[in-house]
Amino acid sequence: MKHVLILGGGFAGLECAKRIRDENIRVTLVDRWNHHLFQPLLYQVASGALAMAEIAQPLRSILSSHKNVTTLMDDVVHIDLPKKQVQLKGRVLDYDFLVIALGAKTSFFGHDDWAQHTLGLKSLDDAMAIRKKVLLAFEEAESATDAVAAEKLLTMVVVGGGPTGVEMAGSLAELAQRVLKDDFRHIDPARAKVHLIEAGPKLLPMFPGGLPDYTRERLETMGVTVHLNCPVKEVGEGYVIAGDQRIDSAIIIWGAGVEASSVSRTLAGVTLDRAGRIEVLPDLSLPGHPEVFTAGDIVAFTDKNGIKVPGVSPAAIQMGAFIAHSIQNESSSTARTAFAYWDKGSMATIGRSAAVVSFAGMQMRGFIAWLMWLFVHLVFLMNMRNRVSVFLHWVWSYCTWQRGARVIQSPRSS
Amino acid sequence: MKHVLILGGGFAGLECAKRIRDENIRVTLVDRWNHHLFQPLLYQVASGALAMAEIAQPLRSILSSHKNVTTLMDDVVHIDLPKKQVQLKGRVLDYDFLVIALGAKTSFFGHDDWAQHTLGLKSLDDAMAIRKKVLLAFEEAESATDAVAAEKLLTMVVVGGGPTGVEMAGSLAELAQRVLKDDFRHIDPARAKVHLIEAGPKLLPMFPGGLPDYTRERLETMGVTVHLNCPVKEVGEGYVIAGDQRIDSAIIIWGAGVEASSVSRTLAGVTLDRAGRIEVLPDLSLPGHPEVFTAGDIVAFTDKNGIKVPGVSPAAIQMGAFIAHSIQNESSSTARTAFAYWDKGSMATIGRSAAVVSFAGMQMRGFIAWLMWLFVHLVFLMNMRNRVSVFLHWVWSYCTWQRGARVIQSPRSS
Repeated sequence: MKHVLILGGGFAGLECAKRIRDENIRVTLVDRWNHHLFQPLLYQVASGALAMAEIAQPLRSILSSHKNVTTLMDDVVHIDLPKKQVQLKGRVLDYDFLVIALGAKTSFFGHDDWAQHTLGLKSLDDAMAIRKKVLLAFEEAESATDAVAAEKLLTMVVVGGGPTGVEMAGSLAELAQRVLKDDFRHIDPARAKVHLIEAGPKLLPMFPGGLPDYTRERLETMGVTVHLNCPVKEVGEGYVIAGDQRIDSAIIIWGAGVEASSVSRTLAGVTLDRAGRIEVLPDLSLPGHPEVFTAGDIVAFTDKNGIKVPGVSPAAIQMGAFIAHSIQNESSSTARTAFAYWDKGSMATIGRSAAVVSFAGMQMRGFIAWLMWLFVHLVFLMNMRNRVSVFLHWVWSYCTWQRGARVIQSPRSS
Repeated sequence: MKHVLILGGGFAGLECAKRIRDENIRVTLVDRWNHHLFQPLLYQVASGALAMAEIAQPLRSILSSHKNVTTLMDDVVHIDLPKKQVQLKGRVLDYDFLVIALGAKTSFFGHDDWAQHTLGLKSLDDAMAIRKKVLLAFEEAESATDAVAAEKLLTMVVVGGGPTGVEMAGSLAELAQRVLKDDFRHIDPARAKVHLIEAGPKLLPMFPGGLPDYTRERLETMGVTVHLNCPVKEVGEGYVIAGDQRIDSAIIIWGAGVEASSVSRTLAGVTLDRAGRIEVLPDLSLPGHPEVFTAGDIVAFTDKNGIKVPGVSPAAIQMGAFIAHSIQNESSSTARTAFAYWDKGSMATIGRSAAVVSFAGMQMRGFIAWLMWLFVHLVFLMNMRNRVSVFLHWVWSYCTWQRGARVIQSPRSS
C-alpha cells in the first residue's frame, strides 16, 4: 500500500489530502496546529470582528470521513530526501510520495531583530495577540493620566500596502472611529491614529487601473494616514522610522512580506529563489525526486502559460488538487502533465461597503465589489456552520456597528 | 455629585451599575477583565462546544448607553474603609458609596499547593486551559507509541459533585464517546475514562428527592465513573488519591469548592465565615459602614425569611438590583429595607437530553428538564447576538454531534 505523506494542513495540503480518495493509498497529514485556518479572514479575528472558531476547524474533523487519511499534530524537524524519511518531533515517518506544503512565514527582509518589536499576522496566535494589544491599548489609555502616553497608546502602525496591510488598517480605523465610539468616558477613541506604511509608490500594486488610488482615497476618508514611497528603515521598541519620519507607537503590525517556511533551506540539492521558495519542475516535483511534490506558498513556479503563480489560496488549492491527481494516476502508463494556474482574479476589502475586485480584465470597486467579496469568502469558508455563523455575525455588525469578539483573554500576561 | 464605586463586573456588580439610572449619580465600575462572563455556560467553552465570545461581552460595550457609568479595567489592591478610598494598580479612587462584588475563587480547603496540579473553572482563561489540555491529550495519545502513556493521557478526573463537576464530567464524556468518535485512526477516543469524585454520599446534594440518584445513573450510562464518599486526600503531578484509590491522570479539573475573593480577608473590622465570605447587615451593608455594600458570592447572608442565600447568579443579580435601589433612594427619609432572596429554583444539565430541575417544590428530570435548561440559559444570555449564535450552535451540535470550538491555540506553549 503506497504511503503519501503530506506536510502542512493549509489550503494546498488539505486539498491534496481530501482529493486522494483511492482507498489503496494511505495518507498521513502532518501539521503543527490542530486546525486548518481560513487565512483570508484572519484580520477579522485580529480586529475583534470574528471569533477564532469561525475561521478555524480541526483538520481531523474535516477529514473524519476520509478513512484512508491519518492526521498527526507534530512539527517537521528534518526531511531526508535520499532515505525517503521525515523526522518529526515525535517520530520518524517513511514515505512513497511526499508533498511539501509548509507555506510561508513573515519576512523582515534580513532584519530579523524587528520581529520582537512587531506583530505578525499569519496564525491564530498572531491574530489573538494583535486583538489583545489593540483592545488593551484603549483600556490603558482610558486609565492613563498622562496625555502623551495616551496618544502613543492610541497610535497604531501597519507596515505593508498589500491586501493584508490594507484590510488590517481599514479594520482598525473602523474599530476606533465607529465600534468603540460610545464606550469610553475619558478618551475619544476616534482620535486614535492608524498609519499605513508602504515602501512603493502605491497600495495594492497587483491591482490594475484606478483601484490602487481608489484604495488610498477610501482609506484616507476612513481616517487612515497613508505613507507611500516610505520604506521602513528602523524598528525598535515602541517606534518605527519610515522614510524620514519617526512614529511612536506601541502597536506595529507587520504585513510587509512573506518568505518560504524555513524547512525549504534545509533541503539538499534544491534551488531556491530570494524568498526561499523552492523552484520545481512543471509537474510540481523536485528535480531528481519525482516522488516529492511541493505546493502552495513554499513554491516558486512559472506555469506553462508564463504566469508566475502568486501566493494566494486559489493557487494553493489548485496545486494540491493537481498533485493528488498525479499521485492517483501514477500507476497508469501516461506521462505526468504540467500544472497550469487558473487565475480567478483578486479581491481585497477596504472597509464597510468598500472593496476592490479585479477579474478577467474587469475592475470593480465600492459596494458591489464589497458584496462580491462577502459572497466569495462565505462560499469558500470550510463548512456550513461557519458560513451561517459568519454571515449572521456580518449582518449583525453591519446593522449595529458592533463587533462580537472583543474579549481580552489573560489581560495580565503578555 | 455622589460617586458610587463598584468593584467587580460579575452578575452582582453589573446589575447594580445598570440599575443606577439617576444621572446625578456618577458610577465607576472596576473589573480586572474587560468582559462580563456568563459563568453558567463556562464548562461549554472548556469542552469546545462554545466559543469564548459567545459567553463573554465587554463591560464597556454593555454599559455603552449608560453615560453616568465609567468602566475601568484594573485590579483592586486595597480598600481603605476609614478613608473611603480604594487603591487600584493604576490609581486611587474616592467614593461616597462602595459596592464590593468581587465574587469567589476556587478553594482547595487549605491545600493551596494542589492548585498547581489542577485546572480550575472560574474564568475564560481557566476554560481555555482545560480545552487545550483535553484536546492536546487526545492528539498526543494518537501519536503515542506507548500504551500505558496513552491510557494516562486519556484519563480525566473531575473533582466535586456539584453542578460544575457534574456538567463538566458529562460534557467530557460526550466529547470522548461521541464528538471525537470518528476522528482518530490509532486510538479509540471512546476508551477515554472520565472519573467524577465526590467527598459526600451523593451528587448534586442541593437537589431534592431522586434527582441526585438519577444524575449518578445517567452519568454512569454516559460512561463516567462516579466515586461517592471519596474525599480527595492528595493531589500531585499527574495523579490524585481519593478515598483509598490512586488515579493517574494528566487532567485534574477542580470543581470542588469556592471561597470568597481574597480581598475580603484584608478588610478591617469585618466578620467572615469559614469560606472568607463577609457577614453583612440585613440591608447588605457592612456593620459600621452604611456607605459600603457587598453583593454576590463574596457575601454570607441569611435573609429575613431565614433562607441562607446561595452563591448562584440569580442571588447575585437580586443583590445588585437591591443595592442600586437603596443607593438611589438614600436621599429620601425612609429607612432602608432588608434584602429578601427570591429562590428561582435550581437546574443542572448532565448531558444531551438530560437535566435536573428543582423549582417551587417541583422536581423535573430528563428531556423536558433539559429543554427548560436550554430555554432559561438562552434567555439570560446577555444580548440577542449571543442568544442567536448559541442557539444555532446548540441546534447544529444536537443534529451533528459536532462541537464548533475545537481549536487549540498556541499548542507548544503551556
